[in-house]
Amino acid sequence: MTEDRYMELALDLAEGVAGQTSPNPPVGAVVVKNGRILGMGAHLKAGGPHAEVHALNEAGEAAGDARLYVTLEPCCHTGKTPPCTEAIIRSGITKVIVGTTDPNPTVHYTGINSLQKAGIEVEVLHHPRAERIIRPFEHFIRTGKPFVTIKTAVTADGKTAAHTGNSRWITGPEAREDVHRLRSRHDAVLTGVGTILHDNPLLTSRLPRGGKHPIRVILDTDLRTPVHYNIIMNTDALTWIVCGSGAPEEREHALARAGAEVIRQSTPDIRIPELLRQLGGRNVQSLLVEAGGKVNASFIESGHLNQFVLYVAPKLIGGSGSPTAFGGTGFPDMGEAAGLSFEEIERIGQDIKITAIKEESACSQGSSRKSGQSAPSPSRVSPPR
Amino acid sequence: MTEDRYMELALDLAEGVAGQTSPNPPVGAVVVKNGRILGMGAHLKAGGPHAEVHALNEAGEAAGDARLYVTLEPCCHTGKTPPCTEAIIRSGITKVIVGTTDPNPTVHYTGINSLQKAGIEVEVLHHPRAERIIRPFEHFIRTGKPFVTIKTAVTADGKTAAHTGNSRWITGPEAREDVHRLRSRHDAVLTGVGTILHDNPLLTSRLPRGGKHPIRVILDTDLRTPVHYNIIMNTDALTWIVCGSGAPEEREHALARAGAEVIRQSTPDIRIPELLRQLGGRNVQSLLVEAGGKVNASFIESGHLNQFVLYVAPKLIGGSGSPTAFGGTGFPDMGEAAGLSFEEIERIGQDIKITAIKEESACSQGSSRKSGQSAPSPSRVSPPR
Repeated sequence: MTEDRYMELALDLAEGVAGQTSPNPPVGAVVVKNGRILGMGAHLKAGGPHAEVHALNEAGEAAGDARLYVTLEPCCHTGKTPPCTEAIIRSGITKVIVGTTDPNPTVHYTGINSLQKAGIEVEVLHHPRAERIIRPFEHFIRTGKPFVTIKTAVTADGKTAAHTGNSRWITGPEAREDVHRLRSRHDAVLTGVGTILHDNPLLTSRLPRGGKHPIRVILDTDLRTPVHYNIIMNTDALTWIVCGSGAPEEREHALARAGAEVIRQSTPDIRIPELLRQLGGRNVQSLLVEAGGKVNASFIESGHLNQFVLYVAPKLIGGSGSPTAFGGTGFPDMGEAAGLSFEEIERIGQDIKITAIKEESACSQGSSRKSGQSAPSPSRVSPPR
Repeated sequence: MTEDRYMELALDLAEGVAGQTSPNPPVGAVVVKNGRILGMGAHLKAGGPHAEVHALNEAGEAAGDARLYVTLEPCCHTGKTPPCTEAIIRSGITKVIVGTTDPNPTVHYTGINSLQKAGIEVEVLHHPRAERIIRPFEHFIRTGKPFVTIKTAVTADGKTAAHTGNSRWITGPEAREDVHRLRSRHDAVLTGVGTILHDNPLLTSRLPRGGKHPIRVILDTDLRTPVHYNIIMNTDALTWIVCGSGAPEEREHALARAGAEVIRQSTPDIRIPELLRQLGGRNVQSLLVEAGGKVNASFIESGHLNQFVLYVAPKLIGGSGSPTAFGGTGFPDMGEAAGLSFEEIERIGQDIKITAIKEESACSQGSSRKSGQSAPSPSRVSPPR
């Protein structure tokens, strides 16, 4: 195994726990000596040990003189767990290879500096994949709002359904399984009440070997979600229903009795900025939007899209009345369209998966430094990751 | 250069002349001896020498004991030029490497057999790229109709324009140049009168170093195309205007005086099957459709799409009223959608180019044999390629 491969392995570990560590970022770590892996670990859950600690514990005394590969700069502050830098220094590790630095401006490089002061050699890779994995965390500590990914599946002519509303199935089984993986890596998944009423979805993450369920968020201005629908009856995951200020109280009570939590906005209609503040306040770091054209459009029109995941199926359905992924009014001019950058293009079964990042987001790591915006609250800026 | 590379070079030569050889297929040939290229050639124009002859002429006497790489099985019949097999046998070539066999069922393998009878070793590669290059030719000799490619450029949310109609520009300069290359490789390009009236396009192939112009075909039921519009005023390429049986004769005369040719259908509305028979009768082997949603939809609804080229731009324009690539009524159910197979996915500048083939077309080579359909007329089945 080459040196590069150890970092890739640590990144695989981090990716595996994405969506289950909020408000902490997903992190992976590997301890290596003389070409042998002595310990591996990931941060599994907020409040639990960090990735480095798991990996060092597994290595035990053998960690002396070993190298530590860790996807994110180790912390040097005491949160719910003691500083990782202390554990590393105590372990006898002689070199730490860091995927990327901590994006939190108040702790950025403090972990690296304290390791170096203790005589440990530190190499920072600024690894693109490491930066990508912590993008939601970085966005969250910078803005206090979740990183928003809109996911949609379309025919090759851009339709999300036939003119009759039929949409089963657009993509093949592999792409549909990939969506469940995407859900499991997000803190929350969001849709509109229109989709609930039309499709009666579960919105859980149904992977062959299981996967963490995201919190389910429904935008439902007037609380029309029926209590006997799947999303309420199924209690595998939490369900939060966001409504306008004027939604009927008796509906709120009925939904609460059925186990859902109602989040009321301050305005009669639902506004995306307030929604994202509310979700951020509840430590939702990553939000997957799986909604119809109207809800999707409200995210781009309010400028709150960070990532776009598009599954394209090899079929043409046609129809000037067939729905598309983004409705609303739309921008009047091509020059005003929301600019993206295509980051990854993959074939998944018979389909194509395109991952695009909002143009600003593509370089948010840099801009976050310059903007000088600090984190929303100390409890969030120094998370016990 | 490895052996494989010589065939790739011959295929490059063939691709370079695609769109300028109809009714013959584009073919390339390379003569090689002792690791040196002695001659190269492509079939440049119907009636002119075939690729093999150009390459052998370039090699001259040195062709003795050499190998010939040719993208398509050499012909052994006399058309406008003598049989290529005779020229090959005379040249002293000892081995012929063939990209793919002649798809014309009446001459299939006759060229190969006559070479073998003369003691020349023949290897048939069934090269996917070779098969792809002659796909329009194969479709044409099998059906008598042009191979139809629909090309469209969309935003990542599948729109061909903003709700205001603004569509300049969706894709970047590299993708737009690629469209001009696509045009130059087609015998004809087709659009609807709606696009003419809205965009006033030239529909020529404007490449930095020049390129053959396709014949321009306009679907214009009532002959509304104004004589002072670009497509009529510009005489770089032929313009054919297809109209319904009831189109005003005075308009036909006006357009004819302005240099366009009017092709009248037998029905008041334009029907795609008759259109394709008319174009096939004029030796249009490959047709590029660059039209709006209504015209595009008429091709899929009548089952006359062979290939789909989609340029996707990294932007989201939104708008439930923004036009999409395929309008019409559309199919009612996902199971009835026109099935494609994604063949190639490329990044072109900031954009993505997706080439998809109609599911039947993907294996038409095989099915053409089985269908037993023969070519429409002797003059077409034994083209002097």
